[in-house]
Amino acid sequence: MPQSLENYIELNKKAIVKELRQHLLQLQIPGRLKESMLYSIEAGGKRLRPILLTASFEAYDQDKQKIISTAAALEMIHTYSLIHDDLPAMDDDDFRRGKPTNHRVFDEATAILAGDALLTYSFQIISDDPLLTDRQKIFLIKLLSQASGPNGMVAGQMMDIEAENNAVSLERLEEIHALKTGELIKFAIIAGAFIGGATNKQLEFLDQFAYNLGLIFQVQDDILDVIGDQDKIGKPVGSDEGNNKSTYPKLLGTEGAIEQKQQYVKRAKAALWKAGAADSYLMGLTDLFSSRDR
Amino acid sequence: MPQSLENYIELNKKAIVKELRQHLLQLQIPGRLKESMLYSIEAGGKRLRPILLTASFEAYDQDKQKIISTAAALEMIHTYSLIHDDLPAMDDDDFRRGKPTNHRVFDEATAILAGDALLTYSFQIISDDPLLTDRQKIFLIKLLSQASGPNGMVAGQMMDIEAENNAVSLERLEEIHALKTGELIKFAIIAGAFIGGATNKQLEFLDQFAYNLGLIFQVQDDILDVIGDQDKIGKPVGSDEGNNKSTYPKLLGTEGAIEQKQQYVKRAKAALWKAGAADSYLMGLTDLFSSRDR
Repeated sequence: MPQSLENYIELNKKAIVKELRQHLLQLQIPGRLKESMLYSIEAGGKRLRPILLTASFEAYDQDKQKIISTAAALEMIHTYSLIHDDLPAMDDDDFRRGKPTNHRVFDEATAILAGDALLTYSFQIISDDPLLTDRQKIFLIKLLSQASGPNGMVAGQMMDIEAENNAVSLERLEEIHALKTGELIKFAIIAGAFIGGATNKQLEFLDQFAYNLGLIFQVQDDILDVIGDQDKIGKPVGSDEGNNKSTYPKLLGTEGAIEQKQQYVKRAKAALWKAGAADSYLMGLTDLFSSRDR
Repeated sequence: MPQSLENYIELNKKAIVKELRQHLLQLQIPGRLKESMLYSIEAGGKRLRPILLTASFEAYDQDKQKIISTAAALEMIHTYSLIHDDLPAMDDDDFRRGKPTNHRVFDEATAILAGDALLTYSFQIISDDPLLTDRQKIFLIKLLSQASGPNGMVAGQMMDIEAENNAVSLERLEEIHALKTGELIKFAIIAGAFIGGATNKQLEFLDQFAYNLGLIFQVQDDILDVIGDQDKIGKPVGSDEGNNKSTYPKLLGTEGAIEQKQQYVKRAKAALWKAGAADSYLMGLTDLFSSRDR
């Protein structure tokens, strides 16, 4: 009998955190570097990307062990991007998820190196995975490097910095988010389904699904910054206001942003049906992404 | 007829710079990010790692095209490490090879992102190489991520920072250099020979060769900091003195450091003979590494 979405998420979170710890604890490296990597990896977080990866895999295959190392690699890439984004030269954040950021606990040099190390280690983990074929590993590495490098997440971060003191259009805003957060979400969906054995046709529809899911995620982030509960979201409400950041509510009003989100939800679910994954946990995760309060 | 070592190096430098430019120019990414990546890639440098990679490949195979993308990927990893090392939070260098460092020309945020982008792109380039088999690509990615990540270069950089205000033994100094510069040199030698078709036995001797070559490189760096020509080395002579950095001349005296270097040269050449690569350009490159004045 299928378990509830809440149970599914909880069990997956535990499995991914265990896997992450194993990969980090086995490293024979300078203590300070290891502590710094572990600190940010264990600082909590929703583990959304690895959960999406696993759910997408399970829409087509059952043997979860095949995807768990890739899930750890993906979460390491996400964590590295947070560590570097928080640096004084970037967003200059002192807190993340209610805890001091990496460079506040350690120092800037260590935080830069911990990010570099997590990024590089993620590729090592995939290339070392004994459960995947060389062809599968190369598919994953190609997709992950595209999604997270100069063609993806890093480009989005650059554009986000450049947009900070400029008015940007909704189109431009979508482009930035698609790169900055959407690309890794797309990786999670496509990589999971590919390793699970989805057909090329199914992967095409999942690509549409992932695109809309990424946008849902970002709109809800922006909405929570306006009407969210500070204790739940772990940062001051209204923090986007101060820093001249472009957001959906600023461009469309809060009501308009909510309507826009509903559009994305509709498109995401339609794509999921076409991909033959409507009875997977991805359906419930879409609603959860849309309605989350943290 | 074999060409002179000088010609060989010049031709290879041109080929590698051309290859690097091609990979970067084809990126459809924010202009500032691309300029920043190109700036450091084109800021000169001896291109030692890609030249070693090519020479090691050519000790066993002729078709250089097979190794040129990997050479570009390797130089990108080296360049990323320089960009991050130069940051104010790390070594805080304003100049590199006589030119302003990346964060001085652009800004810290852009320099961090350019480094992240070069690191990630290098794995994309290898995974996309149409001339290599999936098995070869995975061998390269595994070795390169080990050499440059938390098990390799990044660990060395962390230890180097921690050693800055402490007295360290010769043993510890060798360990730091083996990680910080030796690992990428080892990658160049092993990866080139592997793709060129060297046997496992030959790879074992090349491992010894690479280890000693890395140390030669570092001792000479330290020696040049004491007795070198400022105009040639591109940074003030005696700069290691001021920052409490552990160096060979400080531990052994200048004469002692030169003797130590001769030991390493002897060991390197013996290993090269055993690997069946004594008639390759690696032999001449060993002497060049040992006697270089810049």
